[in-house]
Amino acid sequence: MNANYKECIQACLSCLEACNVCYHACLKEDEKMAKCIELDRECAEICSFAVNAMQRTSIFAKQICALCAEICDACGTECKSHDHQHCQDCAEACFRCAEECRKMSA
Amino acid sequence: MNANYKECIQACLSCLEACNVCYHACLKEDEKMAKCIELDRECAEICSFAVNAMQRTSIFAKQICALCAEICDACGTECKSHDHQHCQDCAEACFRCAEECRKMSA
Amino acid sequence: MNANYKECIQACLSCLEACNVCYHACLKEDEKMAKCIELDRECAEICSFAVNAMQRTSIFAKQICALCAEICDACGTECKSHDHQHCQDCAEACFRCAEECRKMSA
Amino acid sequence: MNANYKECIQACLSCLEACNVCYHACLKEDEKMAKCIELDRECAEICSFAVNAMQRTSIFAKQICALCAEICDACGTECKSHDHQHCQDCAEACFRCAEECRKMSA
Repeated sequence: MNANYKECIQACLSCLEACNVCYHACLKEDEKMAKCIELDRECAEICSFAVNAMQRTSIFAKQICALCAEICDACGTECKSHDHQHCQDCAEACFRCAEECRKMSA
Repeated sequence: MNANYKECIQACLSCLEACNVCYHACLKEDEKMAKCIELDRECAEICSFAVNAMQRTSIFAKQICALCAEICDACGTECKSHDHQHCQDCAEACFRCAEECRKMSA
Repeated sequence: MNANYKECIQACLSCLEACNVCYHACLKEDEKMAKCIELDRECAEICSFAVNAMQRTSIFAKQICALCAEICDACGTECKSHDHQHCQDCAEACFRCAEECRKMSA
Repeated sequence: MNANYKECIQACLSCLEACNVCYHACLKEDEKMAKCIELDRECAEICSFAVNAMQRTSIFAKQICALCAEICDACGTECKSHDHQHCQDCAEACFRCAEECRKMSA
């Protein structure tokens, strides 16, 4: 695998886990967390896609990471607005992943 | 996330990377590596699926891991028969993942 | 593509659409539809997986369809219990897909 | 589902099938079809992603379709250069999908 991808893959994997954990936790919350659930899923899916693309050295890795950065920012912003620990953890992972994906796609 | 899943998720992530790397390398080999390419893709996809399912505590995580074990075994057996380092590495990751997935799905 | 797969692929595609539509509609409902949201996603993902597997004549198509049938049944049963039209439509598509997937995997 | 999406979803589904069929057929060809295999997979994956995004009315549907158009063009161009019927069929489905995805993302 392209050595340059390592840090970005790692950030995507952390974000993937945080999003999946937050998604599941949001489904269990008493209040309605529809927007967070929706974005957690979107973000987990594009992170998964980006990881796979980088690991197999896809010629579209940069474009996929650019889209990933955009979705991570949206998910991070939504999660940041909720007090649940899983949301705060997810926001942090999203913003970190967005940053790495932007570096990668530059 | 379910703490019991951690080891299995880690094995799936290692297998995912090994399969994606082997897939890409096989496409670049001079000889025809069709069966290995095909199984690397199958295995990467089910590993990705299993990781996501476990991370979001899917009620089907066990069944997905059982299928993952089966596909990992097939991919590992194919990879084991090739001398390329990427194939040998992939075989090892596949067999280890199959073992963890079988534990998980038991 | 294997001609035998055509009907099963079509049932999976209809189920995929019904699950994605129901998922989005459930997120917009006033009441909490957590279990339906969760199963709609699970079911959409395995249907997508099954369609791709059959279209590329995967050697694991039967096992993937067997798992798909199981997840479709669970999603159909959950959806059936809700009066929303999108849930009833989804239940119907799920049960039809489960039936085709069981035929395929037999 | 958004009615505007219908034509684009249909074009993505046709492209998905053509790419998966071409992928499998390329693996069976005597000659080495590595680049076609690689792009068929890339294109099938983004088409699958786009279909799901549109069906669940993702707020990122336009951006995903824009990326899909780009990958479809690349896959169509590669497939167009091969005489196999499955490659020619795939090229046609790719170019049609690229066109619909560009309309969608405009």
